[in-house]
Amino acid sequence: MTAPAAGGAELDIILGLFVLLLAAKVGEEAFRRLGQPGVVGELLGGFVVGPNALALVVPGETAKALGGLGVVVLLFAVGLETRTDDLLRVGRPAVLTAVLGVVLPMVVGVGYGLLLGEEVFTTVFIGLALAATSIGITSRVLADLGVLERRFSRVIIGAAVIDDVLALILIGIVSGVASGDLGIATLILVVAAVGFVGLGFAAARRARGLRREVFTWPLFADTPLVPAFLVMLGLAILAQWIGLAAIIGAFVAGLIVAETEAQDELEHEIRPLASIFAPFFFAVTGAQIDLTALLRPELAIAALVLAVLGVTAKVLGGVLGARELGRWGALAVGVGMAPRGEVGIVVVQLGLSLGLLSSDLFSAVLIAVVLTTVAAPVLLGTVIPRATLAEEAVAAGGGLDHDAACARAETR
Amino acid sequence: MTAPAAGGAELDIILGLFVLLLAAKVGEEAFRRLGQPGVVGELLGGFVVGPNALALVVPGETAKALGGLGVVVLLFAVGLETRTDDLLRVGRPAVLTAVLGVVLPMVVGVGYGLLLGEEVFTTVFIGLALAATSIGITSRVLADLGVLERRFSRVIIGAAVIDDVLALILIGIVSGVASGDLGIATLILVVAAVGFVGLGFAAARRARGLRREVFTWPLFADTPLVPAFLVMLGLAILAQWIGLAAIIGAFVAGLIVAETEAQDELEHEIRPLASIFAPFFFAVTGAQIDLTALLRPELAIAALVLAVLGVTAKVLGGVLGARELGRWGALAVGVGMAPRGEVGIVVVQLGLSLGLLSSDLFSAVLIAVVLTTVAAPVLLGTVIPRATLAEEAVAAGGGLDHDAACARAETR
Repeated sequence: MTAPAAGGAELDIILGLFVLLLAAKVGEEAFRRLGQPGVVGELLGGFVVGPNALALVVPGETAKALGGLGVVVLLFAVGLETRTDDLLRVGRPAVLTAVLGVVLPMVVGVGYGLLLGEEVFTTVFIGLALAATSIGITSRVLADLGVLERRFSRVIIGAAVIDDVLALILIGIVSGVASGDLGIATLILVVAAVGFVGLGFAAARRARGLRREVFTWPLFADTPLVPAFLVMLGLAILAQWIGLAAIIGAFVAGLIVAETEAQDELEHEIRPLASIFAPFFFAVTGAQIDLTALLRPELAIAALVLAVLGVTAKVLGGVLGARELGRWGALAVGVGMAPRGEVGIVVVQLGLSLGLLSSDLFSAVLIAVVLTTVAAPVLLGTVIPRATLAEEAVAAGGGLDHDAACARAETR
Repeated sequence: MTAPAAGGAELDIILGLFVLLLAAKVGEEAFRRLGQPGVVGELLGGFVVGPNALALVVPGETAKALGGLGVVVLLFAVGLETRTDDLLRVGRPAVLTAVLGVVLPMVVGVGYGLLLGEEVFTTVFIGLALAATSIGITSRVLADLGVLERRFSRVIIGAAVIDDVLALILIGIVSGVASGDLGIATLILVVAAVGFVGLGFAAARRARGLRREVFTWPLFADTPLVPAFLVMLGLAILAQWIGLAAIIGAFVAGLIVAETEAQDELEHEIRPLASIFAPFFFAVTGAQIDLTALLRPELAIAALVLAVLGVTAKVLGGVLGARELGRWGALAVGVGMAPRGEVGIVVVQLGLSLGLLSSDLFSAVLIAVVLTTVAAPVLLGTVIPRATLAEEAVAAGGGLDHDAACARAETR
């Protein structure tokens, strides 16, 4: 037995947790006062105290791991508020949005790369980095604005999960082709990824109405929290083992648990965990952003162009894919799909390690990914109130044509 | 921005969290079914999956840091359930118990060491390692049995805090003398340690009736949890910076917050956090126990003798120091003071690094510290129900003599 409560490592993490959490909350406060989504303030708060600005904290492995746990808990909480019935009801726009949201950024990325005179494989990596949606940021904004139960929110969440599966498959195929090793392994990956999400969804359907006692089996637990938490960790591990993001596993776990009778209780018990660790995740992420790279003009321009192209492609994917949600709803979906995150970064790091991306191109794509992450919540803050209004108008208008109802909502 | 949600380090921690938490809950289940305190099952569950047994997980820096955070949250929760009024009411027995609980183990340790023919300084380190109480284990048992509001519980908690301050001061003096460097630094240490606990207590008295809005200042937070969590982290850092255990700072933070109007709300919100991270702490601790050292007979005997002496000295300290609580209450206090933890381990590591403890003596003292930690909750499980009964009898008997009331309770 050594001394967990007295070691230097622990002071580091408590100190890091303190500084990052404080920065996150001060940033959130400032941004909410400005009428902006708090999560952007948390990201910038982390950036300000992080190694690229004031350097008060340098997040180590532990802080990053704790942040990773935070976003896992956040997506579990989002899953807990999502019903499979609602996802099925938005199946068509979600699938369309996901497919277009992968294809269009690929086209844009490849086109831009070819214009620059890059090799085809390099351009594919640029496209792939722009194609991967990160649902962490958007789901936080949706939860903050209290619109998780809206139709456009469900389309975004469903599309983001499908998007992650598609991106994983494409990464497998592209890196297989790039390394001349496309075969059984890639096939297994595809089957496992589709199977995981499919089986998870089926499990959620079967879990409907499961009694609370499943979790509080004699003596095992006083509350369903710890057993449900174990399910969350287990599926996050499984998802990551397959090659999907851990957060997809956590979301699926939330979906499953949400159908049981313990849903209400768990939704209350997971909130304190999410309220501490999710802001910590965003602050840790912010601390790792190097916005100072924007001071190099040629990098800044390339990154800005890529970011604008990337956001535009995703918005277009949403507007076309979720057309049936009306103008504002479809726009909300498109903007909601815009933030790239972990997966995009994994792609560029893979491209760098395969020698397909130059150091400058790597930096430019990386900054573009970061810019989409910071820009999306700001855009969402503008679009979502209108989309909500439009959706309410449709609901009130009953048989009205969508666009007409939205127009009516706008003129209010 | 790198990829917290996709890195290998994060899979490690999620996997480690999963395995250790599962082991902890299975162990807890088994021990509660056997009528034993669940925390022993959590410790043994951690040992079984840890590197000294099945080696399914090897807790790294991150797991230890997360465990350290767990025990910080646990002590904050204990502080939240403690009122300064109640602590003041048990001032005399708590101070007596703390002083005797340091002096008697010192006497026993020095005596045993001299019998073995060790040098005086070496014997002082043995005594010091036996003197430091760790409140983590006991407070968990008290919380599990729902007796935190009992008089004996308050004496234990108050005495453990004073004990930690005394132990810190003694460690400062002893290592100062050992390294021939006793001076201003030691004096500052003493003043800072006493000052921290004293000022914390005074702050708690001043915080009485503070409105909930102190924590939920406009927009800053929807719930008081995050601001209160920041207070906890801040005082934990301050305590550790002074040289006290981080958990003392967390306990003082809990004391302060407990006097405000947010107490009730926070008590509910901290529970989910404690229910995940406290078992994780005990499992991580268990994973670091090397019970296999007990297979070496000469080590096992030395460790057992030291453990028995150590527990006896602490029990005696409680029985004498808390005499006014009646026979069973005083016994509960003594047993509650028995588990040693981090501080004891820090002391032996210090002794080893100063060259005052041989490797074998180091191992023996370390195992003795671990044995007190595992034995105490088992003993508490037997003593506390009787102490509770006795206390109820006293309350019912009004003016009755304590021992008479206890005798009456026993004959029920």
